[in-house]
Order: sequence, then C-alpha cells, then structure tokens
Amino acid sequence: MNVLIWNEFRHEKRANSKPKEIYPDGIHTVIAGFLEKNGMEVRTVTLDDFEHGCSVENLEWADVLIWWGHMAHGEVQNEIVERIHKYILRGLGLVALHSAHFAKIFIKTLGTGCTLSWREAGEKERLWNVNPSHPISQGLGSYIELQNTEMYGEPFDIPEPDELVFISWFEGGEVFRSGACWRRGRGKIFYFRPGHETYPIYYDLNVQKVISNGVHWAKSFKSDSDASCPNIPESIETIGVDK
Amino acid sequence: MNVLIWNEFRHEKRANSKPKEIYPDGIHTVIAGFLEKNGMEVRTVTLDDFEHGCSVENLEWADVLIWWGHMAHGEVQNEIVERIHKYILRGLGLVALHSAHFAKIFIKTLGTGCTLSWREAGEKERLWNVNPSHPISQGLGSYIELQNTEMYGEPFDIPEPDELVFISWFEGGEVFRSGACWRRGRGKIFYFRPGHETYPIYYDLNVQKVISNGVHWAKSFKSDSDASCPNIPESIETIGVDK
Amino acid sequence: MNVLIWNEFRHEKRANSKPKEIYPDGIHTVIAGFLEKNGMEVRTVTLDDFEHGCSVENLEWADVLIWWGHMAHGEVQNEIVERIHKYILRGLGLVALHSAHFAKIFIKTLGTGCTLSWREAGEKERLWNVNPSHPISQGLGSYIELQNTEMYGEPFDIPEPDELVFISWFEGGEVFRSGACWRRGRGKIFYFRPGHETYPIYYDLNVQKVISNGVHWAKSFKSDSDASCPNIPESIETIGVDK
Amino acid sequence: MNVLIWNEFRHEKRANSKPKEIYPDGIHTVIAGFLEKNGMEVRTVTLDDFEHGCSVENLEWADVLIWWGHMAHGEVQNEIVERIHKYILRGLGLVALHSAHFAKIFIKTLGTGCTLSWREAGEKERLWNVNPSHPISQGLGSYIELQNTEMYGEPFDIPEPDELVFISWFEGGEVFRSGACWRRGRGKIFYFRPGHETYPIYYDLNVQKVISNGVHWAKSFKSDSDASCPNIPESIETIGVDK
Repeated sequence: MNVLIWNEFRHEKRANSKPKEIYPDGIHTVIAGFLEKNGMEVRTVTLDDFEHGCSVENLEWADVLIWWGHMAHGEVQNEIVERIHKYILRGLGLVALHSAHFAKIFIKTLGTGCTLSWREAGEKERLWNVNPSHPISQGLGSYIELQNTEMYGEPFDIPEPDELVFISWFEGGEVFRSGACWRRGRGKIFYFRPGHETYPIYYDLNVQKVISNGVHWAKSFKSDSDASCPNIPESIETIGVDK
Repeated sequence: MNVLIWNEFRHEKRANSKPKEIYPDGIHTVIAGFLEKNGMEVRTVTLDDFEHGCSVENLEWADVLIWWGHMAHGEVQNEIVERIHKYILRGLGLVALHSAHFAKIFIKTLGTGCTLSWREAGEKERLWNVNPSHPISQGLGSYIELQNTEMYGEPFDIPEPDELVFISWFEGGEVFRSGACWRRGRGKIFYFRPGHETYPIYYDLNVQKVISNGVHWAKSFKSDSDASCPNIPESIETIGVDK
Repeated sequence: MNVLIWNEFRHEKRANSKPKEIYPDGIHTVIAGFLEKNGMEVRTVTLDDFEHGCSVENLEWADVLIWWGHMAHGEVQNEIVERIHKYILRGLGLVALHSAHFAKIFIKTLGTGCTLSWREAGEKERLWNVNPSHPISQGLGSYIELQNTEMYGEPFDIPEPDELVFISWFEGGEVFRSGACWRRGRGKIFYFRPGHETYPIYYDLNVQKVISNGVHWAKSFKSDSDASCPNIPESIETIGVDK
Repeated sequence: MNVLIWNEFRHEKRANSKPKEIYPDGIHTVIAGFLEKNGMEVRTVTLDDFEHGCSVENLEWADVLIWWGHMAHGEVQNEIVERIHKYILRGLGLVALHSAHFAKIFIKTLGTGCTLSWREAGEKERLWNVNPSHPISQGLGSYIELQNTEMYGEPFDIPEPDELVFISWFEGGEVFRSGACWRRGRGKIFYFRPGHETYPIYYDLNVQKVISNGVHWAKSFKSDSDASCPNIPESIETIGVDK
C-alpha cells in the first residue's frame, strides 16, 4: 500500500501559532507516522514543493492520495489538478480531509460546490457510525467523540454519497455528513470531516483508525493508461450498414 | 417553462454536407420547434454567438438548458463553462444530448471522463425503457427503435446514475446507458444518447417525447444566488466554548 | 390527489391517556384535516376496520397511502400486507410516519430490519434540510425545530436512501436520517420521522408542510395491473435458434 | 472463506433430461468444484434436505450463500426464508444466480417484484463489463460472450442497484442488468444472470471467474446477533426532560 500524503503546510509554519504548536513538523508528518505504523509505504509532499509534489512519478507510485488544504487552495495550479484528476479516473484513491472540501481536486471530482456552514467554537462532536458493516467503520464503537472541534454544518453541497458512513452531531445544534464515499472512473473517494489545524485531531486514535481504514477502502484497481474513446469500426454482428 | 437551447451549429453550416441537408436551419431549430409546440418558451443560441449565447440574462431566464456539441467542444471558453456550472448548482436543469457527453460543462458537472466507444455504421438501436414509471419515460412503449444510428458503447465513464431510464441495444453487439439522471447542487441533469448529426433523429416523435419529458423533469427550484459557506458564529446551544 | 390515511388508532382510544388528550379523534383525523385544506381527497381507515380498511377498492382509488402504526404492527394480517405491497409495486405511493419504521409493509418494501435506538425524554429535535431543492423540502427554512420529541437514533437499518432530505439533531446527542426516499417497482416511498403519540407533533405547521409535500412527491404513475414475467417467444432478430 | 451453496436440485434428477445430462450431480456440485479449486471451503445443500439445508449451524458457519432455484420456489418454507433473511441482515452475503430472481429470499431482501421477460431460444449473449474497476469484474475482458443462453429482458423490477457491473446484450434484441449489487443491513447481495439449466453455463471459465469474484465481494463483517431496537434511557447531554 503506497500512500502519497499531501499537505498545504502553511498554517504550521507560522511562528507562535497554534497549528505550529500542535503539529510542529506539519500535519502530514503525524499522518505519515500512524500510517507507517500500520505497515504502509508513505511519501509526504506539500504545496511549496515543485509541482506541489504531485509529479507523474509520485502519482504513478501511489495507490491512494491523502489531501489536506485550507488557506491556499487557490495556489494549487490547474495543470496539476488536471493531472491528479486523470490519475483518480485511472484508479488512484483520494482521501480528502476536513477543509479539503474546498480543494480544487475535490470539487473537480465531485462536480458540486461543496459549500457548508462552519463555526470555530471548540465544541463537542460525535460522529455516529451509520454504516456498521462498512470497511471504513471497522474497529470503532457506535460513535467517535471529539471534545473540541470546529463545526461544519449542513447543507453540504455534495452529490448524494454512494455510501454514507458517518453523520456528525455538534453540541451547538448542527449535523453533518462527515464520512462519505463516491466512485469516479476507476477511483474511489472518501471524505472525512475531522481535522482542524487548531485542534490535535490527528492524534486521536479513532480518527487515525478511520483514516487508515479509509486508505485501505480507497485502494482500487489502477489502469496503466487513461480511458480513451475508441472507434470500433467493425463488428461481426454488423448487418445492413447504410453508408 | 423557459428553455435555452444551445447548439454548436458547425456541422450544419457546411455546404453540401449531410447535416446541412437534414437540419438546414440547425439542430437547435428543430428542437425549438417541437418544444414550442408543447407550449414551452424557447431561446436558441450557438457557439459563435457572443459569450456563446450564455449571457447572465439568458441563464437567469432559463429553467433548463439543452446542450448539443460535437466537433468544437474545445472552443467553449472556460469562463462561460464556469458561469453555466454556477447556474446549474443554483438549479438550472441540463439536458445533454448525444455527443455532449464530451462537452466541458457535462464533464465538469459529473466529474468523470465520460469516455465511451463508438461506431458509425447506421445500425439499428433499441432504447429499452428500464424505468417505466419515471417521468421521462411516460408516453412511450417498452422500447424506442431507431433504424439508423451511430453506436455508442460501454463502458461509459459516468458516475453511477441516480436514476437510469434507458439502456440501448445495438445491432452490432453493444449496449449503452442511454438515458441517465443525476443531481448536482440544486440542478438536475439528464443525459440522452440519440442524435448524431448525419441521421434525422430529432424528427423522431419518440425522441421528441423523451426530450420534452426530460426538460420537464430537469426543471428544479432555482435559487437567486450561489450557495455560500457561512460562518455561524453563535448558537443558543453552544456550551463550553474554549477560546 | 387521493390519499388513504391509515392509522392504528389504539393509543388514542385509551381513556385518560396522553394520546387521547392530544388526538381525541385519532391521529388520522388531524392529518386528514390539513391535507383536505390543501385540496386533497382523503379517506381515513384504521386497524380495526374490515381488512384494516385496505380493500381493493380503496387501494385502487388511492394515489398515496399514509401509514401510522406503533403498538399493534403484529395484528396487521399478512394477506393485507401482500395486497398493499402489490399496489405499491404498481405505483401506489407510501408515506410512512414515525413508528411505522416497524410496520410490516415498510419492512417488506425496504427489505431490511429497520431497527434504530430510541429514548422518550421530550427532548429538542432539529431536522436539518440537507436537500434544499428537493420537492419535499420546499417552503421550509434550513431546519425545522420541535421542542419536545421522542428521540430516534442511528444506526437506522435501512437501504441507502435514493434521496436523503432531512437529518435530525437531538438534544441528547444523537442523529437520525429523518426524511428519506426510495423507489420500489413503480411506487415511491417517503419515510418521515416525527410523530410520537404523546406529543402534538402533527399540529406543527412545518410538519404538516412536509407531509403534504411528501404526498405530492410520492404520487407516481400507477399501472392497472401487476407486472408480469412474459415469455417473448419470437424476435425478428432471433437467429440460430438451437432447439 | 466459507460458502454455502444452495441448489433446488430438481431439474437435474429427471431421467433423460437435458439438465441431468449437463449436470449429472447437480449444479451445486459444479459450482462447489471451481470454488474449492480457488481455495474456498464449501458446503452444498438442496431443497429436499431437512430445513432445506439452511440450519442455524450452516448459516452461522457461512460467510456467503449462493442460491440457485427455479421450478420450486414455492416449496421453500417461509420460516426458513425468515431465518436466512436475519442472517443476511447480520452480514451473510448472498449470491443469487439466474432464476433465483424469483427466489423468496431474493424478493424479500430487495422488496420489489423482480419480474422480467424471457425467451428460450439458445441465443447469443454478451455481458458488457460496465464497471471495469469493480472487484467482481477483475480478470475479465471488456465483455463475456455466451453462445447459447436463455434470454432475460428488461424491465427487471429491482431497486436501482447500488453498483451495476454487467449489462447483457442479446442476439434477439433485448438488454438486461445482469450483474447488480445491493447492501441490506450488514449483508451484501450480488445478482448474476447466467445459468439456465439446459445450457452448460457453469462450465464457462469466465462465468466461474465472476461467481468466484462475487463470493469474495459479498463477504462482509458478520455480527453475532440480530440488530435490536435499544432504548437509550439516559444521555449525559439530556437537558430539560419533561416527564
């Protein structure tokens, strides 16, 4: 299992910031740590790398791409988004985390606006497991509880998920489809909500479990080449061609 | 019911061509004719119009947009595609016909590659009505038969349709999901396969019935503005804010 | 629009009970009242009627069947459930309310166990409108709030809904898919959660709006007869029959 | 992987019949043969066994149940169907073959009528792989071709599949959704069309591949007990209980 972990890595570089305090080496490093413990091969790349780290070589190598972005979605070059999209259609899995709901690649893949409502109040969140036999919810109880999170609320402008795994309850009165799955081309996409940069969410063992499960689920059967639009000129059944 | 009919209108301008012979005033004019007979308000626009005819005024006016394009998908400006996409998310319906499977707006809305296989052999096609109680299949028999069509074959790289209405059988041995529905944002999308420029498909009464039904189905509840991502700063239930 | 309203009508007959106080003439009478105001034709029937009121004549007449049951699901005769099911497959709409999640006809139509968790604590519920352009959510704000309800919690053992309209938030920490749509045969099914017999839920104007919208949505194109399994002995294309 | 193979086993017992000639030891024996070669544990049971072979012990043991029935669906006892259904909801996979579209357990699980049209003309069938990255279609080309089959035609009265894998083309002019997937409770259901008793379909290597893939796909995470409807009397968040 080869996992390419993409992090915007801007929040965590700011001196004396909460994100830097929580994730001194970046969110990607923490995610890489627990995936490696689970026996996965990982590579970490960031926005400021050449081609944002999304070289052809890395995309060929990867089974699954994890994406975390927030303040700099607009800086991701459209050419690279196009490239990643082609790899998703070939079978690269995509695990989009938290504010990646507004990542160019996520929006391009789903085709909707991906808008939602939000509040930063450090409130309690419960992610209810609404799909107890789904591969992504294995090893968890009936819900995951996080004591301090940013709230995301409905309506979440996404296509009806192929499979819905988690629905969040927030202390402040909102709900959210926090774990959702889709298929696009040969690729499988999993969106998972938790992960604001000012809370230590990615140290939570249940959150780590979900991300690890999500990576396993998102691995698909990759193709060596893009799908094409072939002309099939002849057919043994063809009768009565009129041209 | 206000319908904006968009036609690339290039094939039909070529002197002595088959398309010009069949559709001397353009495919859009034939479609406009039968929709008007059904009591709809229509406007027709083409690729070579200013902004391809997709002005804000026209998109505000329209309930549903019909799209036919083939040889010049690449000439449609990205800015206009973005604009149309925003209107679809607001509730503008989209009826994509035949080779519009490769239209930028269709691909952007679905998020997949929309590839397929094809053959021009003037062969017989039967579109089986697999969803007999769907609004789009009302007034039809168990199938529609077209004597001479271009073949489109699976795999058709689309997201699993929310509702599948027609599956085509082709004389040469292929099948195709020829009538399929999706929702994106507040907009409803209907793809309908028939309609090659060298066959008089849009004069067929059953095809006209489907397109008319499809327009009625695709009308949604439009919003006056784009969805936003509001901050919801306060909540009467908010307890224990930790900031 | 012809609506057959079925109510178990046991709770409300008990002397000095809370349900009798709230619904002295039965839940069906209150529902009938607001649907009639909206211009619908209604008939009300109850468990203790002959054939539970589900005569062939009533099922032929009805476009949509509303179902409320709770303590006596087991008393509904299997033969009548079979009959209703056949009508649903022919296109009769079904609006299942609250504890009808355990009605024989609902379980038979969905194919799952329809289990959930519950609590009677008179707590606050917010039904978030997660599908703002759906016909069932028209005329409502971003959520409906009910001050005192019975709680229903996930996991709700239902097939993935074709369309999800409402997700509930409960004061006590649970969430629930409270408005969900499916298609079975020619019939459309809408489940709507609110409506415990000890709270005056069906007097709430928003709840009435949803039920009325749900009835309109659930009306389909009925067939005069059951679907059959026809032998198609000949086909003009049949070649090479080997028998 | 523990697979329980259920066969009606009536056709193949008739002296001098075509089915007996093709499957002298029963269809179940042929299926058992190729699954065992793939390393699976199998048990075979038939209609005439005690409890039709669907003892609690066998259902506890099995990960996946394969079902083939045709002329004697009505002889399967309702109590046993209920038992199997409970096991499906707990996570037992179901692979329903060919005429099992009319098996009581299949209809009960899907909730629809499962009607279709049919013709016995020994005609050619092509099963197009419309979902090339699905686990069930791995190891196959773009289609499977069977030279002599019974035809099944649309409309097939099933709920919209969660995932559609194969669409069949028939020489005589029909199409059919021949490979389709659903989830019910914790159980996964795969329907696969080929397999008439008068053609040697289950000796075809591609058909064997699909069934083997289907068994792997249908294995889920089984639960030790039925889902229940628990009362959750207390909640740390519960505020303002009014009773």
